[in-house]
Amino acid sequence: MYLNELYKDIEKYVDQEITLKGWIKSIRKQSNFGFIDFSDGTCFKRIQVVYTDDLANFDKIATYSLGSSIKVVGKLVKSEGEKQDYEIKATNIELLGDCDKDYPLQAKGRPSREYLREIAHIRPRTNLYQAVFRIRSVAAFAIHEYFQNNGYLYVHTPLFTTADCEGSDQMFKVTTLDFDNLPVKDGKCDFSKDLFGKKTYITGSGQLHGETFAMAFNKIYTFGPTFRTENSNTKTHANEFWMIEPEMAFMDLEDLMNVEEDMLKYIVNTVLDKCKDEIRFLTLFVDEGLHDKLTTLVNSNFYRVTHKEAIDILKNADVKWEFEPSYEEDIAKEHEKYLTEHFNGPVFVYNWPKDIKAWYMKLNDDGKTVAAVDLEVPGAGELMGGSQREEDIDKLNKRCSELGVETSPIEWFMDLRRFGGCVHSGFGMGFERLIMYLTGIDNIRDVIPYPRTPNNCDF
Amino acid sequence: MYLNELYKDIEKYVDQEITLKGWIKSIRKQSNFGFIDFSDGTCFKRIQVVYTDDLANFDKIATYSLGSSIKVVGKLVKSEGEKQDYEIKATNIELLGDCDKDYPLQAKGRPSREYLREIAHIRPRTNLYQAVFRIRSVAAFAIHEYFQNNGYLYVHTPLFTTADCEGSDQMFKVTTLDFDNLPVKDGKCDFSKDLFGKKTYITGSGQLHGETFAMAFNKIYTFGPTFRTENSNTKTHANEFWMIEPEMAFMDLEDLMNVEEDMLKYIVNTVLDKCKDEIRFLTLFVDEGLHDKLTTLVNSNFYRVTHKEAIDILKNADVKWEFEPSYEEDIAKEHEKYLTEHFNGPVFVYNWPKDIKAWYMKLNDDGKTVAAVDLEVPGAGELMGGSQREEDIDKLNKRCSELGVETSPIEWFMDLRRFGGCVHSGFGMGFERLIMYLTGIDNIRDVIPYPRTPNNCDF
Repeated sequence: MYLNELYKDIEKYVDQEITLKGWIKSIRKQSNFGFIDFSDGTCFKRIQVVYTDDLANFDKIATYSLGSSIKVVGKLVKSEGEKQDYEIKATNIELLGDCDKDYPLQAKGRPSREYLREIAHIRPRTNLYQAVFRIRSVAAFAIHEYFQNNGYLYVHTPLFTTADCEGSDQMFKVTTLDFDNLPVKDGKCDFSKDLFGKKTYITGSGQLHGETFAMAFNKIYTFGPTFRTENSNTKTHANEFWMIEPEMAFMDLEDLMNVEEDMLKYIVNTVLDKCKDEIRFLTLFVDEGLHDKLTTLVNSNFYRVTHKEAIDILKNADVKWEFEPSYEEDIAKEHEKYLTEHFNGPVFVYNWPKDIKAWYMKLNDDGKTVAAVDLEVPGAGELMGGSQREEDIDKLNKRCSELGVETSPIEWFMDLRRFGGCVHSGFGMGFERLIMYLTGIDNIRDVIPYPRTPNNCDF
Repeated sequence: MYLNELYKDIEKYVDQEITLKGWIKSIRKQSNFGFIDFSDGTCFKRIQVVYTDDLANFDKIATYSLGSSIKVVGKLVKSEGEKQDYEIKATNIELLGDCDKDYPLQAKGRPSREYLREIAHIRPRTNLYQAVFRIRSVAAFAIHEYFQNNGYLYVHTPLFTTADCEGSDQMFKVTTLDFDNLPVKDGKCDFSKDLFGKKTYITGSGQLHGETFAMAFNKIYTFGPTFRTENSNTKTHANEFWMIEPEMAFMDLEDLMNVEEDMLKYIVNTVLDKCKDEIRFLTLFVDEGLHDKLTTLVNSNFYRVTHKEAIDILKNADVKWEFEPSYEEDIAKEHEKYLTEHFNGPVFVYNWPKDIKAWYMKLNDDGKTVAAVDLEVPGAGELMGGSQREEDIDKLNKRCSELGVETSPIEWFMDLRRFGGCVHSGFGMGFERLIMYLTGIDNIRDVIPYPRTPNNCDF
């Protein structure tokens, strides 16, 4: 059986014989008995296995290395020790797979996260990453649950695109051509010879395609990998990450904020419910405020302020800013931090100056701001960004020509405004940002199984 | 409210006023009343809206175009017509978004699927694609549910890789370099100038990385997009598709087959339960055997035959083969078809000749076959392919050197055999193949929102 099954209803198994397969997390021996700290990876909890010299291979067992895989047969009993409630009195222990002596995780010392990144194939076996990656999995499923239970369609928008209207400088190019022998025509690379017959990119967003499905299925979401070429080595940027992009017909900016708030609370509630051991561990060893932060969030109402109101608050603050707050500009990291501390919780900032936001966002009646909203959360900054979309074809065309956005490659997108268009809204949430928020981990490299950052695409 | 909510408990709403927002699927007018076939996209079912000249804008409503978005307020009543059980007697109808006259979906005629592919942004509004893409979404979630409920960890394996051991000829290359101005060193493209400092690919499989997580979390699965450069224009190949790759510690080939069978039945059961209207429609208009095929599957035991037994069956068959069945070779499409018809259901073919299978598969004691298994299903051919993995480091090294697989870029993968390795197995399932099987649709282009095939990367 599996440990997660055992722990689900452990009283039921007391005095019964059970069989487990898993790994030795530590092992020690006294004169005529010994202990194995045993994990099978299916839950954060481990279990203590007691072996005695009643076992024929008692001396042999004591030589098994930390990290080895074993099969344990034994009886579950209430423990006499203080550290754990239950333990297994082994009647048989069998070595399945030995562990070489150069195993990088040894009993002594706590390796640094920097070192653990260098052994990314081994680090998932440590407590820290057991906690982080289980929360990652639980949160991913919670997102699917939330949208599926609320009538959203999951749509796989394409990753390859030949339209570079989103800003091709931020997109990776993909090709089947031979770099050492590129076909050339008129002095330029001849992409007509490439597999798709055109210069091809990996998209950084499924939003535009998502909208086409929202106009057919009403409420949709995407959840898939996303790529940006950003050459920046910060704690919050990676070149490969996952993103969730819901898009909803007939919803305005206020409806959008409601969905964002409702979704985030659902995710946090689910993680608090399903990952108690993980959150406890992370609160003890990573971020002592974590548990409080998450429980506070699910019981709070998120504040909603306009960009102008936010700038007012920042200007009135008794703080010496590195970047002076401005009604015309984006808010900086230091501002995000101040705002979430000021409100002591998540805060929506909406109605942004149009000049610093994207071309597809709904122009407000003031002609100056767009119906965009960013959600700022304590500790992680901007977690979601969204907007009501411009559904007026004339205003959208005007905005595109003002900003030099070429609409010919996205006629299909413009069509949505001509064929039964409607008020609609959507947002994007960076999944890794969410995991950082949920775990208290401050470096994106530690919430991605195999992070890809500039000059770092190992494993 | 939404139509899917309404239909969940429709009796409850009889004689109540409800408000819906959605689209006109057809509209007609008699002298003093008219009908609108209304859909809001949240479920396959539509509802009939009756409007009468009691409404101030009666004449105006009659001019609304098919495809327009509208808001309907009205009372739900039991219908007097024969076609539907319920209808809405409108008290107010408001136009939200008009639909231009060149709307490609008109009331008359049924457009070909080839034509619909050319309007991929509009086709999700048709009955056919409403059915297909809702089943796609439901099946995707069923897969997550199955694995999460059974204690698997969802892991996001990386898509970018600098290791080309999987066969770089089948992988797309990705770059940030300028194709018209490539850096050159010693006559070759200098990838040290690229973002990752190395030649980089998009992987075609997360399996190797998945195994590292199975050795930490026991049972894991991936579910993400996959890319192959295959330049083939068949009904079953696309260059971008989604794949599910579970990997399980302590499971052998038989356990693996059990998981595959159990999972597939769970998915099919879920789709039969949640997509009744969609399956009914597809059985009527696409594949008359669909409903029977699916219900038969969930109640059957999948047959399990060795590759040798399968070849025996094929050789004994009274069929003139295009490709002669051979004990040393793969089985062709025509063989797959025969086998699933012979067994009248899904069939596992296992223990394949090692020379036609991958380097990481477990060598059987006969020294000639590997513990690999393909699942063949009626109508879709090979739906899943998996194997027990070679956990013996010496045998694996030997196999790699026989086949010229360079192990230095995957030392981390080899490490798994040195650090507490164990019997383990995994499989891959092409998600689009599954959707073709579930819908009866025979062309992969019709089960992907925006298909990417050679010379076709539009939208």
